[in-house]
Amino acid sequence: MPGQILPESSVDVLIVGAGPAGLMAAAWMAHTGVHTRVIDKRGTKIFNGQADGLQCRSLEIFDSFGFAERVWKEANHMLEICMWNPDETGKIRRSDRIADTPPGISRFQECVLHQGRIERFFLDSIRDASWKTHPVDVERGVLPESLELDDSKVEDHEAYPITVKLRHLSEEEATPEQYGKQLQDGLFRSNLAPDDTDELLTKSRAAAKEGSEEIVRAKYMIGCDGAHSWVRRQLGFEMEGEPTDFVWGVLDIIPITDFPDIRNRCMIHSASSGSLMVIPRENKLVRLYVQLKEVVPDASGRADRSKITPDTILAAAQKTLSPYKLSYKYCDWWTAYQIGQRVGRNFSKQTRIFLAGDAVHTHSPKAGQGMNVSMQDCFNLGWKVSLVVRGIAQRYILSTYQSERRRIAQDLIDFDHKFSRLFSGRPAKDLTDEEGISMQEFKDVFMRGAMFTSGLSVDYGASMLVAKPGAAAVQGDGTDVSAKGEKVVAKEGLAKHVELGKRFPSFQVLNQVDSRPWNFAQWLQSDGRFRIVLFAGAMTSAAQRERVGAFCHQLENILKRFTPEGRPIDSVIEVLTIHSAKRISVELLEDFPQVLHPFSEEQGWDYNKVFVDDESYHEGHGRAYEQYGIDQERGCLIVLRPDQYVGYIGELEDVKDLEVYFGNILVQPQSVVK
Amino acid sequence: MPGQILPESSVDVLIVGAGPAGLMAAAWMAHTGVHTRVIDKRGTKIFNGQADGLQCRSLEIFDSFGFAERVWKEANHMLEICMWNPDETGKIRRSDRIADTPPGISRFQECVLHQGRIERFFLDSIRDASWKTHPVDVERGVLPESLELDDSKVEDHEAYPITVKLRHLSEEEATPEQYGKQLQDGLFRSNLAPDDTDELLTKSRAAAKEGSEEIVRAKYMIGCDGAHSWVRRQLGFEMEGEPTDFVWGVLDIIPITDFPDIRNRCMIHSASSGSLMVIPRENKLVRLYVQLKEVVPDASGRADRSKITPDTILAAAQKTLSPYKLSYKYCDWWTAYQIGQRVGRNFSKQTRIFLAGDAVHTHSPKAGQGMNVSMQDCFNLGWKVSLVVRGIAQRYILSTYQSERRRIAQDLIDFDHKFSRLFSGRPAKDLTDEEGISMQEFKDVFMRGAMFTSGLSVDYGASMLVAKPGAAAVQGDGTDVSAKGEKVVAKEGLAKHVELGKRFPSFQVLNQVDSRPWNFAQWLQSDGRFRIVLFAGAMTSAAQRERVGAFCHQLENILKRFTPEGRPIDSVIEVLTIHSAKRISVELLEDFPQVLHPFSEEQGWDYNKVFVDDESYHEGHGRAYEQYGIDQERGCLIVLRPDQYVGYIGELEDVKDLEVYFGNILVQPQSVVK
Repeated sequence: MPGQILPESSVDVLIVGAGPAGLMAAAWMAHTGVHTRVIDKRGTKIFNGQADGLQCRSLEIFDSFGFAERVWKEANHMLEICMWNPDETGKIRRSDRIADTPPGISRFQECVLHQGRIERFFLDSIRDASWKTHPVDVERGVLPESLELDDSKVEDHEAYPITVKLRHLSEEEATPEQYGKQLQDGLFRSNLAPDDTDELLTKSRAAAKEGSEEIVRAKYMIGCDGAHSWVRRQLGFEMEGEPTDFVWGVLDIIPITDFPDIRNRCMIHSASSGSLMVIPRENKLVRLYVQLKEVVPDASGRADRSKITPDTILAAAQKTLSPYKLSYKYCDWWTAYQIGQRVGRNFSKQTRIFLAGDAVHTHSPKAGQGMNVSMQDCFNLGWKVSLVVRGIAQRYILSTYQSERRRIAQDLIDFDHKFSRLFSGRPAKDLTDEEGISMQEFKDVFMRGAMFTSGLSVDYGASMLVAKPGAAAVQGDGTDVSAKGEKVVAKEGLAKHVELGKRFPSFQVLNQVDSRPWNFAQWLQSDGRFRIVLFAGAMTSAAQRERVGAFCHQLENILKRFTPEGRPIDSVIEVLTIHSAKRISVELLEDFPQVLHPFSEEQGWDYNKVFVDDESYHEGHGRAYEQYGIDQERGCLIVLRPDQYVGYIGELEDVKDLEVYFGNILVQPQSVVK
Repeated sequence: MPGQILPESSVDVLIVGAGPAGLMAAAWMAHTGVHTRVIDKRGTKIFNGQADGLQCRSLEIFDSFGFAERVWKEANHMLEICMWNPDETGKIRRSDRIADTPPGISRFQECVLHQGRIERFFLDSIRDASWKTHPVDVERGVLPESLELDDSKVEDHEAYPITVKLRHLSEEEATPEQYGKQLQDGLFRSNLAPDDTDELLTKSRAAAKEGSEEIVRAKYMIGCDGAHSWVRRQLGFEMEGEPTDFVWGVLDIIPITDFPDIRNRCMIHSASSGSLMVIPRENKLVRLYVQLKEVVPDASGRADRSKITPDTILAAAQKTLSPYKLSYKYCDWWTAYQIGQRVGRNFSKQTRIFLAGDAVHTHSPKAGQGMNVSMQDCFNLGWKVSLVVRGIAQRYILSTYQSERRRIAQDLIDFDHKFSRLFSGRPAKDLTDEEGISMQEFKDVFMRGAMFTSGLSVDYGASMLVAKPGAAAVQGDGTDVSAKGEKVVAKEGLAKHVELGKRFPSFQVLNQVDSRPWNFAQWLQSDGRFRIVLFAGAMTSAAQRERVGAFCHQLENILKRFTPEGRPIDSVIEVLTIHSAKRISVELLEDFPQVLHPFSEEQGWDYNKVFVDDESYHEGHGRAYEQYGIDQERGCLIVLRPDQYVGYIGELEDVKDLEVYFGNILVQPQSVVK
């Protein structure tokens, strides 16, 4: 429509792609009140197939947005892994049973639920959190078709340096032919199929009608638009890595089989018929990852799609599982993919436009990492963008996104490479069979990988956000993320089982006033606040009370310095206390300084800030001090980032450190550009 | 509209009143697929105030309908009770702290959530369970205005002996003036105010327009229409009991106070300014039950409503709490009531029309029993009506409703009478003060009452449903509920900690195939099925396997006899197995007879029927055999009613008992009247 004047509007954050990564970013914006638009080229959300393994850490994150219990209830919990290998006669047998999630690392364990349900829970959480302030809706059937970034404005807090032209598809254009069919051909979103974005755009332009385009100016933009990312292509960023020759099929079926471990996660290596992974799912479904040894990529490096059907995948699975029988009456979904590991060279342009999820890393789905790592990219990014947009944090913290997450992506790709090779390979016949894979090595790599795949080994390097010793650039992906001001180094020994840069572990504590037991993380909601956890120690000792009193006196000044005028004192940094005296030996109002349980004219005292490490009536004793490795008498203080990762650990006297730490990150309200 | 021909329709079950009792009945109908209508005279559900304490047993019941976790998440959990009494100087002081729920009796503890939320969760559960078959909707602004029961048809399974004329109110007529105001005057639904049903009917008749009336014919009818029950009045049934002189006010506020236990449940007896109960609620609210010593009933026995305002209630509370301060900025709701204890003489007419909840028992709200006991009336009644309507059970089981629930209502009223007197009385100054109440006696009664108020002491007497020794009439309310056929007596000693007539306790067991830990009750969903729990014992012992094999052989015949042709073998009676061997020492498909894990052509084996009492990976060992008091080697079998109450306990050889037990209750399909 040449000459047409397009409608224009502005928005703080524009998110492209409403899969789990995009929705995670949107969840942060919704829960922290940022004006946001989310667009997705598809006209509907997906109903079958797609990634579904959920790590412990993802469940913890869902809990911080208030919907973990919905996932936990509907999901199939995976407790046990069974390894099956050929015996001397070549027949598969169960060689090992091990815990799927290493016991004790989290209050959740790995489970499996269809991605569509996760998206549903995100959408509900986003709506509930935002409808009163800045409603965040997902606009479906909307594509970006041009993108500009004005370099001259990137450091201007008030500017909207990003300009995007959006195209609204008709419902018909936005609905892939696949949808609505009884059984969907999963190949159309597999990496074996070409992307359809350009085709959608071309078709829609040809049929263009007035009102189908608009201009949006944004402060920040997050591209979560998948492996074929349109945003990444506009930025000209490259992916590094290669595909392999291994081709795998995926079947989601209700199996009819006499294989005894069909409801456990199984890793099956047959003698010469390829490998198979069993992932038991919700609603009696089981997902089978089946190696398709007979489908070999051609000269171009791509496998021939036409050779892949549910029947060929089933036939390959039957061979691997033999002599056990396998058939099905109901197939929910199927697909195939060719293993490839790639990481993007850049995760952002000018820390104004960001890429996350499949747009910057692709790998095989079998380690159950895809959806998790993608969501966690945006869990890392979202609060930073929100704090900067809202004028609470300084812009340069945004550089930690690439530093922290590109490093994780590299680690993931390394793990996946090793794991895929060992899983796709033929088992060694004996010790002299050097071409075969050692089943012992496979098990060892798998066991060592269990912490990695739980998501809990994520360990962010030194930066203005993490007060670790050592050089910041080396500990991340090379990006410079050191503090602009004085460098703070935490005293890690004060909490022997708490690690800087890792997520804060959670143990049971009791509310001081009503004795209700809580897993402490339930009070670390993802609402964009930093937190100081004051381990107040033995509040019945006079000396310790004096230390706490002195700390609280100075604490009040710090809180005031970083809190905008007129806002509650806990709106930027929240202080939560856990003490170690007997609960009934102290009284909240008499024994704890007011800054630890602020007073409001409308609501009285805040009764949800002070906790105790004591015996509960019904749930035993959490022994939190012991499990955190903190001195029961003297305590310590721990600073948590809004994503629950540990930023700083110090003594109650280290108030100066706190000032410097927060000074390096936060804006002091009087200095906000109005 | 004289001469007008009214529309007529029929329905299996008509429920009058959509409060928690009516919705509980509706939940059964929805979850078991019974064609049902639910009507309520109000045009909207309530948003403030009303009963809110939830017993352990109510939470267990919610779990059996699939929504306990929603309540558990939103509710305020009450862990601790604090007793406050006058000291020697007359000043109140904390004399005791005790657990609110006796530890170990349930996997839930008492908690508090607004009735409106409970109704919301019921409505969601009803919709989710019924929308595919017989959608059960609540029709608001609909009143019954005439009721007839055709006595000649009450024993005819196919007949609709009940005829009701319904009137549909306009939205304006159905909305009380109260609703929509900022602060609602709770008195309009208090027992201090007259009922408005007749007024609503009269007004609506005057303004009557065509289409506002209809005739409904029903097989069964359940009146859950409150203390002023219209249904009860039509039946001419009387309530027995008396009001007392004690008048109490209720305030739901966000308190501003220095009283240290404002977030605990408190029982406060002041020296001479009356008593006060504190019930901490969700969203920072606290409910205060305040004795209004200065409001005394007049000659007619009724208190003067005009003297009761939020200010007078607050003033009385301030006096009792002195020297602590109390004020508020936000009041959510308030009301007042005069304590009275009454029980209906009849709970049903011809076991075709039933009354439940406040329609047959009223008492003071302070023991937190009202909503719970009312819901549990319908939890007892609902499955019986459903099984009879669906031709699965014999009609005479319906007589157990009055026998079981009227007895409970009588017990409740006795408890409430004693508790109210002790709580409303002035504390004794010393041992010689005979008019005063002994604080020790109050505490003793309260502690003894804790099991009662948990809802877990409910113990149904002998009947065709409960194979207890002794005379059926004596153990209930006098109604004859003995079996028509041979009497079966269970062998209670086989499960030392399981009691006939009480709800089956729940401990952790693991799924045999995937090792997932479950609280066993999670598999006892309220879907209308009886259950045989087979404690299969030591499945690795050859002798025990033989016993199990012999039992299963005969079991198949029993199941077939009571299952309608063409329906799955577990649709009337489900068999669940818990064995005591090590999980990894047995295999489901090899070691357990097929009847314990039925095969389906579409879905293969059923993997959710066989459980094991073994160590879990993450949640410890449930020690279920030990906690049930069952022999690890020999096991036993336990029959549960569809409401999870224990009906029968026997040896694996007691197949004859099973046949007689079920024969006394269930219809044998070939004998169903078509």
